[in-house]
Amino acid sequence: MNSNKQDKKLWGGRFAEATDGLVELFNASVGFDQRLAEQDIRGSLAHVAMLGAQGILTAEEVEQITGGLNDVLADIRAGNFEWRLDREDVHMNVEAALRDRIGPVAGKLHTARSRNDQVAVDFRLFTKEAALDLAEKTRALRAVMLAEAEKHVQTEVILPGYTHLQVAQPILLAHWFMAYVAMLERDEGRFRDAAARMDESPLGSSALAGTPWPLDRHATAKALGFARPTANSLDGVGSRDFALEFLSACAILAAHLSRLSEELILYSTFEFGFLTLPDSHTTGSSIMPQKKNPDVSELARGKAGRVFGNLMGLLTVVKGTPLAYNKDLQEDKEGVFDSYDTLSIVLRLYAEMLPKTVWHAETTKAAAARGYSTATDVADFLARGGVPFREAHEVVGGLVGLASRSNRQLWELTDAELRAAHPLLSAEVAGSLTVEESVRSRQSFGGTAPERVREAIEAAKASLSRQKAEG
Amino acid sequence: MNSNKQDKKLWGGRFAEATDGLVELFNASVGFDQRLAEQDIRGSLAHVAMLGAQGILTAEEVEQITGGLNDVLADIRAGNFEWRLDREDVHMNVEAALRDRIGPVAGKLHTARSRNDQVAVDFRLFTKEAALDLAEKTRALRAVMLAEAEKHVQTEVILPGYTHLQVAQPILLAHWFMAYVAMLERDEGRFRDAAARMDESPLGSSALAGTPWPLDRHATAKALGFARPTANSLDGVGSRDFALEFLSACAILAAHLSRLSEELILYSTFEFGFLTLPDSHTTGSSIMPQKKNPDVSELARGKAGRVFGNLMGLLTVVKGTPLAYNKDLQEDKEGVFDSYDTLSIVLRLYAEMLPKTVWHAETTKAAAARGYSTATDVADFLARGGVPFREAHEVVGGLVGLASRSNRQLWELTDAELRAAHPLLSAEVAGSLTVEESVRSRQSFGGTAPERVREAIEAAKASLSRQKAEG
Amino acid sequence: MNSNKQDKKLWGGRFAEATDGLVELFNASVGFDQRLAEQDIRGSLAHVAMLGAQGILTAEEVEQITGGLNDVLADIRAGNFEWRLDREDVHMNVEAALRDRIGPVAGKLHTARSRNDQVAVDFRLFTKEAALDLAEKTRALRAVMLAEAEKHVQTEVILPGYTHLQVAQPILLAHWFMAYVAMLERDEGRFRDAAARMDESPLGSSALAGTPWPLDRHATAKALGFARPTANSLDGVGSRDFALEFLSACAILAAHLSRLSEELILYSTFEFGFLTLPDSHTTGSSIMPQKKNPDVSELARGKAGRVFGNLMGLLTVVKGTPLAYNKDLQEDKEGVFDSYDTLSIVLRLYAEMLPKTVWHAETTKAAAARGYSTATDVADFLARGGVPFREAHEVVGGLVGLASRSNRQLWELTDAELRAAHPLLSAEVAGSLTVEESVRSRQSFGGTAPERVREAIEAAKASLSRQKAEG
Amino acid sequence: MNSNKQDKKLWGGRFAEATDGLVELFNASVGFDQRLAEQDIRGSLAHVAMLGAQGILTAEEVEQITGGLNDVLADIRAGNFEWRLDREDVHMNVEAALRDRIGPVAGKLHTARSRNDQVAVDFRLFTKEAALDLAEKTRALRAVMLAEAEKHVQTEVILPGYTHLQVAQPILLAHWFMAYVAMLERDEGRFRDAAARMDESPLGSSALAGTPWPLDRHATAKALGFARPTANSLDGVGSRDFALEFLSACAILAAHLSRLSEELILYSTFEFGFLTLPDSHTTGSSIMPQKKNPDVSELARGKAGRVFGNLMGLLTVVKGTPLAYNKDLQEDKEGVFDSYDTLSIVLRLYAEMLPKTVWHAETTKAAAARGYSTATDVADFLARGGVPFREAHEVVGGLVGLASRSNRQLWELTDAELRAAHPLLSAEVAGSLTVEESVRSRQSFGGTAPERVREAIEAAKASLSRQKAEG
Repeated sequence: MNSNKQDKKLWGGRFAEATDGLVELFNASVGFDQRLAEQDIRGSLAHVAMLGAQGILTAEEVEQITGGLNDVLADIRAGNFEWRLDREDVHMNVEAALRDRIGPVAGKLHTARSRNDQVAVDFRLFTKEAALDLAEKTRALRAVMLAEAEKHVQTEVILPGYTHLQVAQPILLAHWFMAYVAMLERDEGRFRDAAARMDESPLGSSALAGTPWPLDRHATAKALGFARPTANSLDGVGSRDFALEFLSACAILAAHLSRLSEELILYSTFEFGFLTLPDSHTTGSSIMPQKKNPDVSELARGKAGRVFGNLMGLLTVVKGTPLAYNKDLQEDKEGVFDSYDTLSIVLRLYAEMLPKTVWHAETTKAAAARGYSTATDVADFLARGGVPFREAHEVVGGLVGLASRSNRQLWELTDAELRAAHPLLSAEVAGSLTVEESVRSRQSFGGTAPERVREAIEAAKASLSRQKAEG
Repeated sequence: MNSNKQDKKLWGGRFAEATDGLVELFNASVGFDQRLAEQDIRGSLAHVAMLGAQGILTAEEVEQITGGLNDVLADIRAGNFEWRLDREDVHMNVEAALRDRIGPVAGKLHTARSRNDQVAVDFRLFTKEAALDLAEKTRALRAVMLAEAEKHVQTEVILPGYTHLQVAQPILLAHWFMAYVAMLERDEGRFRDAAARMDESPLGSSALAGTPWPLDRHATAKALGFARPTANSLDGVGSRDFALEFLSACAILAAHLSRLSEELILYSTFEFGFLTLPDSHTTGSSIMPQKKNPDVSELARGKAGRVFGNLMGLLTVVKGTPLAYNKDLQEDKEGVFDSYDTLSIVLRLYAEMLPKTVWHAETTKAAAARGYSTATDVADFLARGGVPFREAHEVVGGLVGLASRSNRQLWELTDAELRAAHPLLSAEVAGSLTVEESVRSRQSFGGTAPERVREAIEAAKASLSRQKAEG
Repeated sequence: MNSNKQDKKLWGGRFAEATDGLVELFNASVGFDQRLAEQDIRGSLAHVAMLGAQGILTAEEVEQITGGLNDVLADIRAGNFEWRLDREDVHMNVEAALRDRIGPVAGKLHTARSRNDQVAVDFRLFTKEAALDLAEKTRALRAVMLAEAEKHVQTEVILPGYTHLQVAQPILLAHWFMAYVAMLERDEGRFRDAAARMDESPLGSSALAGTPWPLDRHATAKALGFARPTANSLDGVGSRDFALEFLSACAILAAHLSRLSEELILYSTFEFGFLTLPDSHTTGSSIMPQKKNPDVSELARGKAGRVFGNLMGLLTVVKGTPLAYNKDLQEDKEGVFDSYDTLSIVLRLYAEMLPKTVWHAETTKAAAARGYSTATDVADFLARGGVPFREAHEVVGGLVGLASRSNRQLWELTDAELRAAHPLLSAEVAGSLTVEESVRSRQSFGGTAPERVREAIEAAKASLSRQKAEG
Repeated sequence: MNSNKQDKKLWGGRFAEATDGLVELFNASVGFDQRLAEQDIRGSLAHVAMLGAQGILTAEEVEQITGGLNDVLADIRAGNFEWRLDREDVHMNVEAALRDRIGPVAGKLHTARSRNDQVAVDFRLFTKEAALDLAEKTRALRAVMLAEAEKHVQTEVILPGYTHLQVAQPILLAHWFMAYVAMLERDEGRFRDAAARMDESPLGSSALAGTPWPLDRHATAKALGFARPTANSLDGVGSRDFALEFLSACAILAAHLSRLSEELILYSTFEFGFLTLPDSHTTGSSIMPQKKNPDVSELARGKAGRVFGNLMGLLTVVKGTPLAYNKDLQEDKEGVFDSYDTLSIVLRLYAEMLPKTVWHAETTKAAAARGYSTATDVADFLARGGVPFREAHEVVGGLVGLASRSNRQLWELTDAELRAAHPLLSAEVAGSLTVEESVRSRQSFGGTAPERVREAIEAAKASLSRQKAEG
């Protein structure tokens, strides 16, 4: 970016002294808002077409400006555009480039428009598209996890289920995948709801009060793909809750991805040994030749930080600012760009990496058998025999203590020990309580029994197909 | 709360050593989760009825337990319930009290249930109801602001519109109210979307894997007013995105309320002098006898801090925790309670205070005339005469500089000065550019012209009626 | 708290209408600031003694007020004090109770004082004492961890050292403890620096401008144990950076404790199996009789959330507020109380729990041998033989790949395989690279070799003794 | 940056499959950590010199590597360095460029070193220098504000003092400046304390356990300007509290600057009219020709958001991560860079802008007289006459009510009205209570009376000189 050149500020009429160089640097947003160039030019094209339709500009003026804007856009796309810091922002850069091309008629583009509603429309277009794109990418990862669930349900791979990171009860690996399928479906829903709520065009709000020009705001809204124009001009230029809602949905998704990442990091340790990540998605160490590090998951976990920070940052910016536009709001964009980019890449990487991840079914099953993970099954057995659950729990707790002190599993207790604990128990009963049996027994809706999980997978597939059909 | 007594822990079977006193204090959640007592007992009543219907408990057992639970609930409502710290949480307190009343059969209540799904259902019930209640209260404040808009549009009270807190263009006070009406409508939408997305019953997820008991989870979901049961048991007990989404909606609403508060604080200063707050909603100083402080608005602005902090707190808690339940999640409740209580009272106070606030129309109109707030109108006048807007802007900028240096308003410039700036200008033109005229001219959809604002009010009223009818 | 009674507001002179009941509830801080009662009365006692010394009050007045305040304090300590919501805050409650006891002369206590400087001094006293108390408790935990290091260095217990949670290189358990000793020492330093920086008395700043009364602010500062009075009255009543600095130090300590907690949770899983937590500091499950959950560590990890949230909350409150006091600042206290209480109990619990935790040296040593944790030692061996480190790294990386594919350890490779990889290598070399040898070799300052760790322990003990002596 | 080329990963020995392109992009930190190039090369130069001194490398090797590194540094400074994404980070880019220049001997640079301690030392050097630089810039702004105080105390410019943004008591403008002088001095202290606490060299910690090579860590620490080496290798590579402490100090400073910004924005409104900002530090509007916006202050206020967000982001990253290095920690840098850059420019801009800001003494004085700002003085007058302050407050509150209802100032009340309120009052008394008199009377230490402020300025100048002398 070249900051040596300097043309007169477009707003410089009333100013006696030139802008300080450091102020210019500080104020300029072109370093990041050039990312909105496509949206900015789409907005201008819609605006100028409408000005023509309303008779505010002549057909010739519309043609000149439209042609010029398309040329500018082509230059930008081709990387032949010189972004200038002294032209402050994407809007002024585009407009000045337009004037360089088509002369003073370029000045008519800004008729009945303010940078306030221009940036509002550009940023809203971007954020809405970002929300829809993350909805799509979240759905794509969901489809991948659903496919993994389907793959692993066939062989009924067993995984320890944890609470407090202590082995609790055996579950199916497919069931674990389906938990994330559920979370991701809600994440997608949040992005779609946010996109729908922000689907309003602020263009035509002008500086803050509307304009005396006979605009057709419904036409520009439609041309830009918005559902409708915003109903209040102050709100149109001054509100940023659409960005906050987007950032919130990002933060919740990032929290979910950080949980998934934590589990993958744990499961890929030597100590757990549940899975092997693909070489393509791990890295080594500059000093320790043996290292194979789960970098993708670590970064995905760590990047929750920046995504949370972006939300907190914009909440702070908005807090306590009066209506309508304040320059503080210029701080709205970088966090949105960053959260969007961060989650885009994490979603893509997980969609790539999970199908290449190898699960070690023997290891996971052995782990699932540890830690007296079928103790609840024994208690449930007693309860089904009429023992109040609290009493059954107490009995089995005692047996676990006994087994644990003598380093045995529950099924290694003697018949005598079992019967002493409760007359309904026996070695035969204990022997039947395998992890497979435990998993098979959990037949309640939403439970981990294979047929329940198969049903859940079918339902999720149907739901996914329906959603895809709906677009 | 009495922590001296201590009965045996319900889970104590396998433990050789008693829980340390400080640990007990640290772990216990009854100090705050007793607030979930109603939800907890509703959940238990639904569970026990279903156990009966499924033949897991006898009709007599169901009757005994149901009766006991209702008695316990009556005690709690009457304030006759002793919450005990050594009983850890609301669940154990209720169950132990039930056992005190009806004996060992109370132990059957916990059949096919875990505290994990119990707390999940209690907390989800609370959060859903909190979301719907804040939706209602947000709607009520919206109705108040809409009524204010309707009141002030009648006399067409004029307010300065600000950007950068500099007078920009005159607007109607009613238009300002309508900006908040738009924000609050979206806030309500966020609460309703969140409530709909969390409208799933986790009851029956059991510890994490489902249960071998033949439960009817659809029945308990229905009995508790949920739309459906959760589809995955791990997700049911381990997810907290519903609370995060609630806290996000709270944070965005708090941001909006902080903006409103800032404006009211500014407008009630001596320097602005736009309004007088009611004595009933302001306070004085212990040392300065003349003070009348806008405490409600200051606190409402400041309390954005705790509401943001609650969101950040729970995001941090969830970050990086593996599935399913971890004790960390116990930290989910206090922030939700606090954000709910905080916003409930702020919404109620603003609904009370705004109609009692007196606006000083002469002062606001005089302020709206300052700062060359009609300069855009002059530029628009030139642009309508065919001058490219950029050139018109430059011309008027020069006039503002001239007027400003000689301490005059634009309409106090001489005919000669105006014509020298541009041949289309004249004293007559300048004289016609009053603030009333400026407001009246902004006829674009969403603009501040009185008929536009009247239409917006009618549309908002219709929308509110429709929403009320839909419930 | 009784809110039915209501006496006239002490600031009610200019108000025509009574305060709204909900406003009163909203504004009142006595629900939480009663915790400052001791500090408030200490401040008042210092103030009144100084007023006497300066001849502003008579000796008799001083005696009456002092006696009355001491009586009020005794009531509060005895739990015989009725806190009244209609008296707003701790200051008004104490002063009104004083008047109830000693009559109108109580009104002289507030001479030359404002609630603004009163709350500033109360809260600063509290925060300073809280900072010093957390410094002490952090030091106490450091002493415990140092003692653990000393205990475990004797038997040279070996632990796997991790990077990316992958086994990296073997270390001493004592070395691991010493890492936390270093962190905690810096944490203590932050609390002490914060306490020193806030060690200024705002008392006498009055409302914001100072006072015409001939106060001796140095005397009250000294009486209250402050190093000096604040130098600027606006700053004295309006700044809250002392609370922010305290909350920051809390957040960083909480981050450290969350890391320790994560490690203890991992190390106590079945999969790691490195340690057994004491029964006294773990809890069970209401459904799974076998569970033994590391609740203390989970909560300590989760509570990082509230501590971070408290910091974010107060930063938000302070953001953008003009000088001097604003009611928003009332929001400063609860977060400070909460972070203080949270960290106090976590620090105490860890100081209790760590010495009762049993480490399984055989398990940790076996784990440290896994994962080719001595591969760097082989590379270093080659590098010491003149092979550029990068080349050595490449050679050993290849050997790890070979061993890994054939499920062997490095020392299980054949002599031929080793020599083929590099002529300097041999079975003998590989065999000498045990984990003990690896640990012993890391002799650099700060490294994990036993004599280095012993020196580090001695240095840390000396440093601790010196600090204790300094007080 | 060119990502098409690709040389073999320096850690690739054990990997069978190439790194996925998207993973490479995701993992690579060179996009931002190239900013650490100077620190990285300084660290390498110190390391290699020490390796030579310890006899680990030959003099010739040291010379080759040193020469090569200096050449690389020269290229980087000259902008002739090609940063390559496939070389991951600054360390690998520099080392690979070194090898390109000097051949395989470059591989010896990494002897006895890991990227973990390399990045730790680079980042710590940067952060320490950033802390010291912000300390200097904070001091420079303090000096500017002190000079402003000195300028304005000469003419005793009067400003309204506010609480709750309501006029409270008149103060000197110089007194207001001195409040910020006090805050900035503490801000500087926080940066200096942070710099001192992090003044430890982690170099030589190696991967996490130290190294078998006979390093002299004290020598490298000294060569790099650190006070000492870190005492524990795990802590050296794994801790980031130094960055958190830096970010906390940044957040508190940003909070202070946001308060200053808010005040300047308010004071430059038409409604307040207290000051005129220089044209060089304000900007205009693209649509409203008259606008002159306080952009610098608005951005400075808004940027508190990103600075808070950066802190929250890194706290989240660190939360719950086990020792020692995890890839998550790569997320530590961008926030530190951003907070540093943001505050650097804001501090510089305020140091430039404040001396060019014109205060309107007549306006501020008139504003200070409004709002019954001398009411406390009347109450104090009565209290000095023996009336208990609470009673005096009540009397004056009534007079304010009377005056307010009849739109008069206190000194416009009649003698009769005053005497009726209290026999000690009279028209003469009321007439003497001007704002000048009010200011002059506040003689308490730290108060706003001109001689107190002059003393405070002298003390602050002496303190600043002493600090500068100390360096």
